[in-house]
Amino acid sequence: MIENVVLIGAGNLATQLAQALNEKGIRVKQVYSRKIESAKQLADKVNAPFTNNLSQLIADADIYIIAVKDSAIQEILENLNLNEDRLIVHTAGSVPMSILDGFTNCYGVFYPLQTFSKSRKVDFSDIPICIEANHPSTTMKLEKLGERLSSSVNQINSEERKSLHLAAVFVNNFVNHFYSIGAEILHDKKLDFELLKPLIRETAEKINALHPLEAQTGPAKRNDQSIINAQLKMLHDKPEYQKIYSFVTESIFQLQQKHSHDLL
Amino acid sequence: MIENVVLIGAGNLATQLAQALNEKGIRVKQVYSRKIESAKQLADKVNAPFTNNLSQLIADADIYIIAVKDSAIQEILENLNLNEDRLIVHTAGSVPMSILDGFTNCYGVFYPLQTFSKSRKVDFSDIPICIEANHPSTTMKLEKLGERLSSSVNQINSEERKSLHLAAVFVNNFVNHFYSIGAEILHDKKLDFELLKPLIRETAEKINALHPLEAQTGPAKRNDQSIINAQLKMLHDKPEYQKIYSFVTESIFQLQQKHSHDLL
Repeated sequence: MIENVVLIGAGNLATQLAQALNEKGIRVKQVYSRKIESAKQLADKVNAPFTNNLSQLIADADIYIIAVKDSAIQEILENLNLNEDRLIVHTAGSVPMSILDGFTNCYGVFYPLQTFSKSRKVDFSDIPICIEANHPSTTMKLEKLGERLSSSVNQINSEERKSLHLAAVFVNNFVNHFYSIGAEILHDKKLDFELLKPLIRETAEKINALHPLEAQTGPAKRNDQSIINAQLKMLHDKPEYQKIYSFVTESIFQLQQKHSHDLL
Repeated sequence: MIENVVLIGAGNLATQLAQALNEKGIRVKQVYSRKIESAKQLADKVNAPFTNNLSQLIADADIYIIAVKDSAIQEILENLNLNEDRLIVHTAGSVPMSILDGFTNCYGVFYPLQTFSKSRKVDFSDIPICIEANHPSTTMKLEKLGERLSSSVNQINSEERKSLHLAAVFVNNFVNHFYSIGAEILHDKKLDFELLKPLIRETAEKINALHPLEAQTGPAKRNDQSIINAQLKMLHDKPEYQKIYSFVTESIFQLQQKHSHDLL
């Protein structure tokens, strides 16, 4: 049973995860970050000690959660000096579990499929927690830990997790970028971004009732070349947005054609 | 005061608008559609007579709302045979108000900024209604009509409306397409699309608290070439998604750079 945790990392995910665990009664025993101020900032939120020195990690935590950027995981592992029976997990979508092999006997992945920012608190209760472990007993431990936080705990292997992460980049990072582009287009005309918010909300909610292929509307779907060309022209001083507009429009049309032939 | 309406068109927008007006006590006097079955289908929902013959339009409605695809508006106008004091509006984002000039003395635009499907009922109460008219008294009439439906009625001219529509294409049509791509990536691995829904929801909600430029996360923002390359490789059999991935990734990075230099 996991009752306490050492958080390695103090970024967006670490910040939200530490707080969520703390609220569910899982004690954060220590926070590590390369930057001492970041470590302190998070540690203060969960009343924990902190360090920026990996050799000073507390030795007997129930789990060590590595929540740093992907490219830093390897170096962290090489500098950890823990007993070989310590449970270590990482939280990265695109990093295989096997990166942990050889550093401990008990390891796994604890990947909450969500977007995190330091300043925005998130409710973990419906966040899919994707777990993987090198041994069934560890799987069970991670499952129980996940269930403390969320009603959606899923066994997902490293290959599947990579696909989830790729899909997440499209539906989160790329979608959010289009919100930025929308905001920029309005800003250029001194129009209020608030005007787009009901549309953004409905677009996201609609897919609870309709598959996105069915929910699609607009000039690309109708292949309305007159609007498509007019809108491309409006983007003449933003060639990078023009390119995106063209490719996404073409892709929508292709997918809708394929959908109406193959899937309906 | 507008108490009744003739709906010209029976597509997604016409269907939702007719029902919303009807519920607010504005009587739908008639529904026209080129296809008689479509006219009947909508007319039945609002207990109205219907026709597929423009010469049989009821002559004395308070307003005629043209809600057909953009490319059909001109032809509708040329075949309308109404008194020159009849109030006619269209509902199109990208069509200037001036298309109505010469067909009547009272005209305008009534553009609800939202995505509509026939089968999904929408709540109009917070939908921005964008109005424009050729005369202040008509503006006022449209404003009052808008206020029956929504708390957000906005005077927006034709140029501004075009920008709103362009932004809407990004935050709705293009965003929805990325939901489709996400669903496809998961489907290929037999993963449940449900796993993405909390992320989609949070991505949309997050911008109520953070500007999308601040809300951005992920490999493109961090310029994490190792994940970017790995994800591009995963899309090797979908070259059109690969192209989109590259351009959007590049665009996110550029915008985040610009943002951190210029705007912060």
